[in-house]
Amino acid sequence: MDTLAGPKVVALGGGHGLAASLAALRRMAGRLTAVVTVADDGGSSGRLRRELGVLPPGDLRMALAALCGDDDWGRTWARVLQHRFSGGELHNHAAGNLLIVALWDLLGGQYGTARRPPEDGLAGSSGHLIEGLDWVARLLGAQGRVLPMALVPMNIEALVGSSRRSANGYRDIRTVSGQHAVATVDGDVVAVGLTPPDPPACPETLAAIAEAEWVVMGPGSWFSSVIPHLLVPELREALVTTPALRAITLNLTPEGGETSNFTPEMHLEVLGAYAPDLRIDLVVADRGSVPDEPLLRRVAAEMGAELVIADVAAPDGSSRHDPELLGGTFVQTLGRGRIEPWR
Amino acid sequence: MDTLAGPKVVALGGGHGLAASLAALRRMAGRLTAVVTVADDGGSSGRLRRELGVLPPGDLRMALAALCGDDDWGRTWARVLQHRFSGGELHNHAAGNLLIVALWDLLGGQYGTARRPPEDGLAGSSGHLIEGLDWVARLLGAQGRVLPMALVPMNIEALVGSSRRSANGYRDIRTVSGQHAVATVDGDVVAVGLTPPDPPACPETLAAIAEAEWVVMGPGSWFSSVIPHLLVPELREALVTTPALRAITLNLTPEGGETSNFTPEMHLEVLGAYAPDLRIDLVVADRGSVPDEPLLRRVAAEMGAELVIADVAAPDGSSRHDPELLGGTFVQTLGRGRIEPWR
Repeated sequence: MDTLAGPKVVALGGGHGLAASLAALRRMAGRLTAVVTVADDGGSSGRLRRELGVLPPGDLRMALAALCGDDDWGRTWARVLQHRFSGGELHNHAAGNLLIVALWDLLGGQYGTARRPPEDGLAGSSGHLIEGLDWVARLLGAQGRVLPMALVPMNIEALVGSSRRSANGYRDIRTVSGQHAVATVDGDVVAVGLTPPDPPACPETLAAIAEAEWVVMGPGSWFSSVIPHLLVPELREALVTTPALRAITLNLTPEGGETSNFTPEMHLEVLGAYAPDLRIDLVVADRGSVPDEPLLRRVAAEMGAELVIADVAAPDGSSRHDPELLGGTFVQTLGRGRIEPWR
Repeated sequence: MDTLAGPKVVALGGGHGLAASLAALRRMAGRLTAVVTVADDGGSSGRLRRELGVLPPGDLRMALAALCGDDDWGRTWARVLQHRFSGGELHNHAAGNLLIVALWDLLGGQYGTARRPPEDGLAGSSGHLIEGLDWVARLLGAQGRVLPMALVPMNIEALVGSSRRSANGYRDIRTVSGQHAVATVDGDVVAVGLTPPDPPACPETLAAIAEAEWVVMGPGSWFSSVIPHLLVPELREALVTTPALRAITLNLTPEGGETSNFTPEMHLEVLGAYAPDLRIDLVVADRGSVPDEPLLRRVAAEMGAELVIADVAAPDGSSRHDPELLGGTFVQTLGRGRIEPWR
């Protein structure tokens, strides 16, 4: 799927944040690989995961749709994938989730690794998982490949501090389980963990990271879509050792829920706390989302990173990254092969 | 989708019978159109129809899969379409049924003819129905087009005579409603009808029949997959007036259920009863399925048809038509442009 003479790029994340990153990167990457969280337990994905024991397909589907071919064929099938049924048993299922699961079923059976019951927690041989995603990518004429961050369904658990202090000044800390609950929690996430704690990573994912020239993390829900990659030991190790330039795209606005009180600096500090040996080369922040530039620059520098503040938000005020502006920023920074002071 | 310099062919039916016919015809047709019953009310199709108010997609899906491109791409997507989920809410749904419904939803919404509730009974503008089927055909690289026999979900009702006579020699006659119930009824179907009685036919279907050189009906469940086409007034009229050669392929073995006591002659007589002005040119019967050849030949002749008795059953004893043998028989008979005595 090498479509251009551009760099080999790996983008990590999940949900809408990863889709924004892919929309920016698909324009200039020679080979683009999306590495996607598989910890969703809500909505259509959660139902499929609970009932059929499969990897939650939703974030994988969204990444595939974001990479669809830039023609009527690719865009139409992307819309089919993203289409949600309304009414009856199928209500709220995304058609693409069902298609991905059908491919896994079919190809898994073919390999003699039929789907196992949910309580098993193991996906067996993983060839069918990757092959199924590759079939959907071919259907879409996708400009890149989509891989899971791990080969088994993951569960996110978080320690969450209550948003209000009690009368004696302390905050209650409670455990919240499940990506959906963490992403929408009322309070601040203090710590996050994954179960199983040492899931099998996808070999193709590790290879893509090892061969990458750029690795991009964020934007996205920090604790439920960005940090989880660092909690998969093999994946964290691959990110630490890759020769690629590593970039972090910060969010435009604090998200409700898990990071509602988080400053941009805190996003970086949290990420650093989960991967102390991860060197970062570039931090991209939107000009309108940096309350304290000197502080953010200092925190970035502590991780080895140059801070680039640019206009990367969509001009329509939609709180989304603009693909052309974000992509242009990557080209002007990572594209030089090394990161230089730039503002 | 004109792939060869062969004849323009329309095959009418539903289910496995139509799939057998298509498997035989796809080898030599220049343009092949399948016209498919939309009266199924059982299984996956029945659930989708009841819950979402859509045309039952199952027979359409099966015809599309039977026309899949003859390469790894076409065969894989056909297998995906035919794949049935097991477990959870999706249990027993065919993935292709869900894909077709998603396309109808998506394209119907695009045209401003969003799906209507089941009680409405009207599909609104039909463009999205045909376009959705054409998208699936393109996905499969299908060697032909699949169209519905009518643009609204149909219901089959049958009068059924009990399989046993009462003490005084009479048979009870009862009404059975629904394709699934009719196809599996214990007793003999005496008469069959469709509701609504005058459904809108599909303009593309009528055009294909008018332009056809060959029209082929059967094999299949006679009352639930073959006869229904003759109960749609516009479709019957098109079949009567087309300049095409008309062929009937008889079933290999009496089916359990609706026609368990039917001889081959009775199949023809019933068909003639529902379309007295329909001239037939060719009746194809397997050598092993004709208990009384002179009688069958006489009944065929009364409809204007030449009877051709040939080896068209699969040699494996599976009670299926062999695609090559059946296709070869069509070429040797219909392929001459006129039907001559042949045995």
